Amino acid sequence: MAEAIFQTFEQKATPAQGAPHLKLLRAELKARGLDGFVIPRTDEHQNEYVPASSERLAWLTGFMGSWGMAVVLADTAAIFVDGRYTVQVREQVDVHTFTPEHLIDNPPEAWLEKHLKAGQKLGFDPWLHTADGTKKLEKACAAAKAELIAVDTNPVDAVWADRPAPPLGQIVLHKPAYAGEDAHTKLKRIQSKLAAQGADAVVLTDAHAVAWAFNIRGGDVGHTPLPLGFAIVPREGKAELFMDGRKFSNTVRDAVADMAEIAEPLALDRALERLGQSGSIVKFDGASASNRLVALLERSGGQAEVGIDMIALMKAVKNNAEIAGSRAAHARDGAAMTRFLAWFDREAISEKLTEIDVAIALEGFRRDTGVLKDVSFPSIAGAGPNAAIPHYKVSTESNRRVERGIFLIDSGAQYEDGTTDITRTMVVGPATPEMKDRFTRVLKGHIAIDTAVFPKGVSGAQLDSFARKPLWEVGLDFDHGTGHGIGSYLSVHEGPQRIAKTGVTPLEAGMMLSNEPGFYKAGHWGMRIENLILVEKRDIPGAEREMFGFDTLSFAPIDLNLVEPALLTVAERAWLNAYHAKTRAIVGPHLDAETMKWLEGATREI
Amino acid sequence: MAEAIFQTFEQKATPAQGAPHLKLLRAELKARGLDGFVIPRTDEHQNEYVPASSERLAWLTGFMGSWGMAVVLADTAAIFVDGRYTVQVREQVDVHTFTPEHLIDNPPEAWLEKHLKAGQKLGFDPWLHTADGTKKLEKACAAAKAELIAVDTNPVDAVWADRPAPPLGQIVLHKPAYAGEDAHTKLKRIQSKLAAQGADAVVLTDAHAVAWAFNIRGGDVGHTPLPLGFAIVPREGKAELFMDGRKFSNTVRDAVADMAEIAEPLALDRALERLGQSGSIVKFDGASASNRLVALLERSGGQAEVGIDMIALMKAVKNNAEIAGSRAAHARDGAAMTRFLAWFDREAISEKLTEIDVAIALEGFRRDTGVLKDVSFPSIAGAGPNAAIPHYKVSTESNRRVERGIFLIDSGAQYEDGTTDITRTMVVGPATPEMKDRFTRVLKGHIAIDTAVFPKGVSGAQLDSFARKPLWEVGLDFDHGTGHGIGSYLSVHEGPQRIAKTGVTPLEAGMMLSNEPGFYKAGHWGMRIENLILVEKRDIPGAEREMFGFDTLSFAPIDLNLVEPALLTVAERAWLNAYHAKTRAIVGPHLDAETMKWLEGATREI
Repeated sequence: MAEAIFQTFEQKATPAQGAPHLKLLRAELKARGLDGFVIPRTDEHQNEYVPASSERLAWLTGFMGSWGMAVVLADTAAIFVDGRYTVQVREQVDVHTFTPEHLIDNPPEAWLEKHLKAGQKLGFDPWLHTADGTKKLEKACAAAKAELIAVDTNPVDAVWADRPAPPLGQIVLHKPAYAGEDAHTKLKRIQSKLAAQGADAVVLTDAHAVAWAFNIRGGDVGHTPLPLGFAIVPREGKAELFMDGRKFSNTVRDAVADMAEIAEPLALDRALERLGQSGSIVKFDGASASNRLVALLERSGGQAEVGIDMIALMKAVKNNAEIAGSRAAHARDGAAMTRFLAWFDREAISEKLTEIDVAIALEGFRRDTGVLKDVSFPSIAGAGPNAAIPHYKVSTESNRRVERGIFLIDSGAQYEDGTTDITRTMVVGPATPEMKDRFTRVLKGHIAIDTAVFPKGVSGAQLDSFARKPLWEVGLDFDHGTGHGIGSYLSVHEGPQRIAKTGVTPLEAGMMLSNEPGFYKAGHWGMRIENLILVEKRDIPGAEREMFGFDTLSFAPIDLNLVEPALLTVAERAWLNAYHAKTRAIVGPHLDAETMKWLEGATREI
Repeated sequence: MAEAIFQTFEQKATPAQGAPHLKLLRAELKARGLDGFVIPRTDEHQNEYVPASSERLAWLTGFMGSWGMAVVLADTAAIFVDGRYTVQVREQVDVHTFTPEHLIDNPPEAWLEKHLKAGQKLGFDPWLHTADGTKKLEKACAAAKAELIAVDTNPVDAVWADRPAPPLGQIVLHKPAYAGEDAHTKLKRIQSKLAAQGADAVVLTDAHAVAWAFNIRGGDVGHTPLPLGFAIVPREGKAELFMDGRKFSNTVRDAVADMAEIAEPLALDRALERLGQSGSIVKFDGASASNRLVALLERSGGQAEVGIDMIALMKAVKNNAEIAGSRAAHARDGAAMTRFLAWFDREAISEKLTEIDVAIALEGFRRDTGVLKDVSFPSIAGAGPNAAIPHYKVSTESNRRVERGIFLIDSGAQYEDGTTDITRTMVVGPATPEMKDRFTRVLKGHIAIDTAVFPKGVSGAQLDSFARKPLWEVGLDFDHGTGHGIGSYLSVHEGPQRIAKTGVTPLEAGMMLSNEPGFYKAGHWGMRIENLILVEKRDIPGAEREMFGFDTLSFAPIDLNLVEPALLTVAERAWLNAYHAKTRAIVGPHLDAETMKWLEGATREI
């Protein structure tokens, strides 16, 4: 049987570990004179994927979701999760030890106000909270007349016996052919922005920003080729990169040293103190900068400007080399997807496959390309009711057999030339009229985004409803955004642009997004159609505005067995046929004859 | 010749008054030891329509727009306006005396930072700036090392020789049949909200909120039946209404005294001091509460919670009586509009009418109803190029003759049972293919909003793009929101809901909005189609969400000479025919036979 290399399906944590680990932590807190402690899921970079050494929340509670926060007091403890994880938290966490709370309905701050007693001391690790997050904790403590204490070392680490060592993934240079702009030029652009904004330096705390600015990649977390570290770019002079020296080969060190002083992570404190002592105005990214760094600068006399990441917008607009790389990656990835879909079409009808078999098979087809670096996230492979959970992650416990009905797979790949993310929904056996109706409405929404044209200045928030309209018309909707930004051989989720109610960043030519409307019938099945799309200028004769539209990047067949042609307009049917023709043209050259034959059937004109 | 009663077309101010008035003000500032002063357009309630006694900006500069701000220093002076008024400001203001500046590109704060000198004293009237607005001035002064001084009396008033007295419009009770909820119940609802939010009192600073809460109307400003005044609603006990006693008849005083203590405006200070001294938590509406009141409470020891107006959302959701009143008002107003449109169709072709003639005629048809209280704003009546100015206000200087081509009229009425706002665009003589194309796209956008169905929780921001899509498809757009809220025999502009990029308030059943997409060909012509619409629940078989849609309130023919049927879908054509059939059914009973005959032709099936 084939195995996955980049995905695991075992639960690494269990609910049973909650009680003993909580006991250890409480003893440690008592020894330190603390009455409580806050344990977020984040690491020092407030990242979505964190190294094993930072999985403190999972160690303490068993919870494995991508966002959560535990609060431990002497006589009570709670874990806060958002709407995505209200079911999962009850499966992964001992709820008698940690009371599950809803992040929005009863946020940690409100809970703390209620449970903290006057005079108590609440500890927090200032590396793991943003300046804003810290303010919320401060406010809650003030309201309860308690004291908020920043700890120097994390008490979880002190009692976590088998805590893994922090990662030392080797750093590689991101090839110029894929980066498209050398790091010197990027750093100079950052420096001009600093000059224009009257700031003396910017601290890069988001590891993606560091990777982008210096054209380096690493291997410190799963699924994203991130080297964890920090950097300071001064308005004038050489940048400083704070990263464990053991991650560099001599060759890479020489190349990086050409554009930055390389220093150990501990030296960051001293560098911030120096900036502070000279009264510098220093910019921080509010979303990833920890309270510790901002406070250190301010304590040293500097002026912190905490706001929107100045690198994020630069990184979001892809250059021609990144766009060309993405197209090549997508042709290759589309061929792997097509081989996978042909295999699934052949095998699934036996009703013997499991979700894990399917995820392993898809990874295999991607590895067959010979250039797969990683999957870009653990595949969401859901059969029947599991497909109705938008953020489902298959494990050996949850693994379902693929029976007749709906199967949804949302997956992606990391190639050096580009990151992919694609969702296809297939029906095993015949589709019901309800399935066809819903799928066709999701497809209509997908087409409405793909074909949207809009003037400069329009944001994803202004397009999001186009994807929902066909569902709204029959009283339905889906409870997630329509699209997120994506990195270039970096994170599969990247801001600031989004197609969602909250996506207020104006779209710019060169930005990449996902287009992934869906529909979920809880307890039964779910469906989603996802392609990546590229914002590009659109010449319209007689236009009075600078206009944009989307160019589709992902190509793989959309299951025609789920399409109800009568629900499509003439233009929508033409879109689907043209998309499938382009899929044959782009993916075809990468296919063997047998798969090509299958593809021709799967993409027949309707 | 007929005359208008509720609209004037004379410019009350001229550019020539700028220099002498500025000289007077500078002398006064010098006498008071001030180096500068800020003069906003607003009054003590931050209102759109202000009484003549508060038209300080117009007196000083000649500028008559609804928003603007002058800043006067000893050796320089500037006037700041937004995009709507960049042309108008140059016509109404002596630009050698007041340099026009763009509010967004070069805001007053940035200008002050540059022009204020260290040690200078900048005066401001704390009644005329919100807490937020004051903070911006403070920041600018701090950056320039200057001092911001709150004046006790406005220096403009001291030198404005013929300043009108503050208004004393008689207060009337808003009839229960139109209000639909008695003031006691409204006040109790406010008090429950205060209890739920843990606040001790709310200060009503928005005069609309006062009028709504106490079911009173007045006559202190043009076009909105507002009694200017303030109120305090405590969590427990009787409300206090601060309003000039001369505005009350004995009967009205008795009725109001039943629900509130009536006190003179000056007593507000003492009431706030009392709240402060008892350490009360007091809510203020951030958009209308002046710095003076917030600061006074805080100085006296109270805790101010400045945020979103708690009354605004209550007021925005209309009850059944208000909805029934609005429907009656719209049937009556639609008949007046129809009589007007028939008259225009007959008369305009002579090319002898002027814009003012047309505005006067329309007011006349509305007065013929016998129950018109006022127009709800000065009609925007634009011929040809003037129609291309979305916020055009016709004056004797700008008045154009109605020639062949486009004529746009945006107007509304105040009736005791409801406020109306409607825009129609007509073509005199034949329409060009370009006019028809643009008008039909605007109509398609209008229909897309009118027919939208959407789940609970969706805001106007999420619908706005539906109105723009048909224009975007050919590279066009319009530069204003698609819709605003509207009051019930109150202001024609009312928040918080809007159909616009900024309209993030979720729509609720009972909210009323305008639906007014447009297209403007600068220097040539402009077009807009506006109806009012009501959010209502929508039963959709099989719906999984609580769904809303819009019910159309305004009925008057849409000019078929501007419609290109080939551009409409089958559903859109059906909408137009059904809308016109409903217009005949609703408006018809109010019409004479001749106008009815005209209406039948104007609303023929296409």
